[in-house]
Amino acid sequence: MTQTMALGEFDLIARHFTRPARRNPLGVGDDCALLAPAAGMQLAVSSDMLVEGRHFLSTVAPERLGHKALAVNLSDLAACGAKPLAYTLALALPRADDAFLAGLAQGLHALADRHDLDLVGGDTTAGPLNLCVTIFGEVPPGAALLRSGARPGDELWISHPLHEDEPGWLGDARLALEVFRGTAGLRVPGEAFDHLRLAMECPEPRVALGLALRGVATSAIDVSDGLLGDLRHVLRRSGAQCPPQGRPLGVVIDADALPRSPLMQGQTAAWQHQCLLSGGDDYELLFTAAPADHHRVLEAGQRSATGVCRIGHLTADGTTTVHDRHGARIATPWASFDHFAP
Amino acid sequence: MTQTMALGEFDLIARHFTRPARRNPLGVGDDCALLAPAAGMQLAVSSDMLVEGRHFLSTVAPERLGHKALAVNLSDLAACGAKPLAYTLALALPRADDAFLAGLAQGLHALADRHDLDLVGGDTTAGPLNLCVTIFGEVPPGAALLRSGARPGDELWISHPLHEDEPGWLGDARLALEVFRGTAGLRVPGEAFDHLRLAMECPEPRVALGLALRGVATSAIDVSDGLLGDLRHVLRRSGAQCPPQGRPLGVVIDADALPRSPLMQGQTAAWQHQCLLSGGDDYELLFTAAPADHHRVLEAGQRSATGVCRIGHLTADGTTTVHDRHGARIATPWASFDHFAP
Repeated sequence: MTQTMALGEFDLIARHFTRPARRNPLGVGDDCALLAPAAGMQLAVSSDMLVEGRHFLSTVAPERLGHKALAVNLSDLAACGAKPLAYTLALALPRADDAFLAGLAQGLHALADRHDLDLVGGDTTAGPLNLCVTIFGEVPPGAALLRSGARPGDELWISHPLHEDEPGWLGDARLALEVFRGTAGLRVPGEAFDHLRLAMECPEPRVALGLALRGVATSAIDVSDGLLGDLRHVLRRSGAQCPPQGRPLGVVIDADALPRSPLMQGQTAAWQHQCLLSGGDDYELLFTAAPADHHRVLEAGQRSATGVCRIGHLTADGTTTVHDRHGARIATPWASFDHFAP
Repeated sequence: MTQTMALGEFDLIARHFTRPARRNPLGVGDDCALLAPAAGMQLAVSSDMLVEGRHFLSTVAPERLGHKALAVNLSDLAACGAKPLAYTLALALPRADDAFLAGLAQGLHALADRHDLDLVGGDTTAGPLNLCVTIFGEVPPGAALLRSGARPGDELWISHPLHEDEPGWLGDARLALEVFRGTAGLRVPGEAFDHLRLAMECPEPRVALGLALRGVATSAIDVSDGLLGDLRHVLRRSGAQCPPQGRPLGVVIDADALPRSPLMQGQTAAWQHQCLLSGGDDYELLFTAAPADHHRVLEAGQRSATGVCRIGHLTADGTTTVHDRHGARIATPWASFDHFAP
């Protein structure tokens, strides 16, 4: 049925979100869920909140919203090299809309099943639409990929889809958003837009690559607020850890090496640079590795069926330099995404 | 300073919420937090979302809002008998208000410190005010208090403050809400109101009692949506588990045995019954134990410096009966709190 029904909170939970926990001792329906981490493993935890108009448009299909709410959290596990275990969902809804919840649950369950994830608990309340997923993964002690392990000389890498016709290339989410906004000067034929919007609405978390990069990458982060902005977090945290007492890390990026979709290749150079370098909502893994491990990175990409591309290297001079293939410097005046920027 | 400042998202996090994780390997600032559960322990997880106008009034002091957001989650750990370990906070804010965040953080940190809890991560975004806390505790396998262990004949208990002049007695949060609403017929002198509103704004989670009830209580739940409504969850889940193949559980409650504050004692019988039996926002532990364990329950109360009061017993007849001290039946026409009720 597709009509809006007046269901109580507990009926809603039971109808759409109560499934037997397969891998955890106790799931939805008690005061707490119970997880049993494997002996000796650390638990990786991440929480992301999605708000209408900020993280998704009101026009998004509920299945895709469910997918995205879980995907952005899986992407955080991927960036840590953690194996997904379970998640909770807290949900504020303007009204109890059965069709919306059915779609949302379908999107969540489909992605969760692909990653063998249990939905173990959460909360439902009335309020402006808001989805908060908290996700749990496991990782052996010392094996988590952190933002703090990059060193001068490391190569800088980014993940990408394996095939040209796969959706979700770097920058495409921003390109789709600009088309939605009616921004002038973009070259996106109408028939290509449904494909392009998949980048924004159905990001693919790089979980398998994160696992394959354990013991290979020196640092990792997922690109959610734009490549340059997220890279700054890595440089700051890694720099503070550089022996003997912290030093400023810098980076050199070859903009022409950045992987991009055929649609992106059709845009002006200015739009390409902005979308690729500060687009946001990309959910690719941006990571570093020692040059001696170049081939191990390529192997990790193959093993996880994920594209990986070297786009630059780290320096010890504290500056960020972006150049083209001819060595000409490219200005990057765009700020990283800030939720509270005017 | 108390002025509203335009701070970036990352500045906000750093200023108010980044503290060194004391008990966990990695806290705020990476893609994931890392928890190291003690060997062999299960992890209890709960998530609660608080929305303005539903779970708190816009007039609440930010310190109290911080306290409450964490307290309602600690209460879920208490109801499971789990020892608090860590929590995450996801926060949607209409604007980056430094004074508000300072107060909120103060309320959170103060309660967290009392329970030796690390804030290990979370998220900040712009949006209608919304706080989502996810909390983690540990419990030995098999020791968690569940909603499903009550059996016919068990005594029914509720927790309460130890002293008459402590705030937060059963029903007082509802009484405070009705005063806020300007409901006629209540007898609350103006000078008593500041004390009364503590019940609504500063609930005290019964963590120590929950720990003391491990191995003693047969079931437990925290009263958040009203005593009778929450009790229904226990009866339904416990009934389904009764051997050999499930049976309808019932309950008999002595309304005159329900613990209450002096202010509550001053209300009409009708208001007392409604506030005590279906008030909501109480965060007392409602639990069952075998009659043979009556003294062990009293000892658990003493050990945890928490009042405990026997208010009835479970039956096998599937009905809910509330009577007064003379045995006269009391009608209970109020529904349990439903976030989507009209």
